Amino acid sequence: MKNQRLNALAAAVLGIALAWSCSLHALAQSDPLPSWNDTPTKQTIVEFVGRVTKTGGPDFVAPVDRIATFDNDGTLWVEQPMYVQLAFALDRVKALAPLHPEWKYTDPFQAVLDGDMKALAESGERGLVEIIMVTHAGMTNDEFSKSATDWLASARDPRFKRPHTELVYQPMLELLSYLRANGFKTFIVSGGGVEFMRPWTEKVYRVPPEQVIGSSIKSKFQMRDGSPTLFRLPEVNFIDDKAGKPVGINEAIGRRPIAAFGNSDGDLEMLQWTTISGGVRLGAIVHHTDAEREYAYDRQSHFGHLDVALEAAAINKWTVIDMKKDWKVIFPFDKH
Amino acid sequence: MKNQRLNALAAAVLGIALAWSCSLHALAQSDPLPSWNDTPTKQTIVEFVGRVTKTGGPDFVAPVDRIATFDNDGTLWVEQPMYVQLAFALDRVKALAPLHPEWKYTDPFQAVLDGDMKALAESGERGLVEIIMVTHAGMTNDEFSKSATDWLASARDPRFKRPHTELVYQPMLELLSYLRANGFKTFIVSGGGVEFMRPWTEKVYRVPPEQVIGSSIKSKFQMRDGSPTLFRLPEVNFIDDKAGKPVGINEAIGRRPIAAFGNSDGDLEMLQWTTISGGVRLGAIVHHTDAEREYAYDRQSHFGHLDVALEAAAINKWTVIDMKKDWKVIFPFDKH
Repeated sequence: MKNQRLNALAAAVLGIALAWSCSLHALAQSDPLPSWNDTPTKQTIVEFVGRVTKTGGPDFVAPVDRIATFDNDGTLWVEQPMYVQLAFALDRVKALAPLHPEWKYTDPFQAVLDGDMKALAESGERGLVEIIMVTHAGMTNDEFSKSATDWLASARDPRFKRPHTELVYQPMLELLSYLRANGFKTFIVSGGGVEFMRPWTEKVYRVPPEQVIGSSIKSKFQMRDGSPTLFRLPEVNFIDDKAGKPVGINEAIGRRPIAAFGNSDGDLEMLQWTTISGGVRLGAIVHHTDAEREYAYDRQSHFGHLDVALEAAAINKWTVIDMKKDWKVIFPFDKH
Repeated sequence: MKNQRLNALAAAVLGIALAWSCSLHALAQSDPLPSWNDTPTKQTIVEFVGRVTKTGGPDFVAPVDRIATFDNDGTLWVEQPMYVQLAFALDRVKALAPLHPEWKYTDPFQAVLDGDMKALAESGERGLVEIIMVTHAGMTNDEFSKSATDWLASARDPRFKRPHTELVYQPMLELLSYLRANGFKTFIVSGGGVEFMRPWTEKVYRVPPEQVIGSSIKSKFQMRDGSPTLFRLPEVNFIDDKAGKPVGINEAIGRRPIAAFGNSDGDLEMLQWTTISGGVRLGAIVHHTDAEREYAYDRQSHFGHLDVALEAAAINKWTVIDMKKDWKVIFPFDKH
């Protein structure tokens, strides 16, 4: 009797073990990039990850050196019809206008209040910097962070009628997770303002604030009524774009990425810095080719202008991700 | 027979399980800070960690927000008789002197070559900046990193006759490990040059380059013969000292630490920023009180000047770590 019971127990344990092993096997077999079509692009990514993570292989990279950097605007989320941060700045100008009656007659604010995008464009970089300064400086960091968070909670994309933080690319979310599951540390390296991104990158991309690199204005530490604050000054600190990206990466990370993902000429130098270094590296450009599901643009676009970097992709064997061909779905809400 | 064998097997399994449980228990009981004496200082640290990690407790802090920052010079390694990086710069001046015959007659280089520390001190901040620029700029980042690494491999501390990277404080190494074992992310926040520290912090402190914040000079990205490089310019980028520390922390980490460790007035603002924020926080100052085993200095010292921050410690209830009373050993090689 006892013997039988023990045998039954042994059989049950064996059964559990077998079931467990099978489900582990199934897990290992499941596709980590389900929103990517089975194209050469996907193969290139999977093959790269396989090579650098193969213990004892010739291209093995220690986990500590598995650094991957991602541009944000147009690489992880939608940057049309204008950068999200620019929409935020324009809305802030409108919200602050009652406190600044003179703006009705002052360039570039007049253009913003009149909705005259042509006049705004004509105010050029000087106009843009003026708008950024009045909307991003003159407050504490906590106050700015709150104003960005509040705006993102209520603002809606004009075409998709959704919060901007939902207009992130599902295949890129999967790629971020896939790289992290393979021991990579994922960083955002954006021309956008670092303080504009940090309040939400952890929730949306699983990228914590200390792994977000971006442009910044100067700030100043002050004790105010016994309370320590960081106050934002109307002075540019760092522009994390073009040749600034490798500089920003070096300052913040202190070592070179082995994979980098961008979508515009602003990412050229980051891709050069990452890929031209001897070892097996992955450089990739998200090419916006899908006017139906998102947008189609490159050389002619003001936002996300892609020209020189597309030429460089061919020369340097960077992977060009064709949104239309390579991606099954664009957004998380497209999934069935 | 079969029954007996199964019973024997069950007993063996039970035995292994018991042994395993006991050793786990022993492990849990073992002291994570063996080089710290059982003083109120140690109790304060252990109690703080217990409170912020107690799930469901009133002071619980999520792992993602467990940020701890450490000054380097005088907090993690020896800063007497002069900052290690200054010794490096002076040695570099001597090494580069044959290429600069005019230095024999030019202040402040003449002072360095003559070993005239009084004249060097009289050249003031201007003199120091000149020395830093000729020894730290005008080369690629990789070249600078190599020169720092090579120097650290051969340089010896004048008193202890050991490499500087061995003159780190054993109790602080244990503290770093203890915090990390409790879900903290540990950062170095030093007035020293970030590129001078990054080549060795991972090996010595288990702090990776991306968790090292420091002072920096500007650098410029260039393609040289098809190879991407970062070239170091003779221009100050950021001074990570005093009111610069909270600014540097915010730029690099994007959230406030909940624990900070320093040893001089240069750490005052970091300690304020960390501890005056509402929740349970730990601020601590390493007080050099042990002339026999290391050094004894505070208000009168040029390097690691500690005066205002010592007054502030009493007011803000920061923990003052008394090296003589609180530490069983100073250096890793003191352990028996």
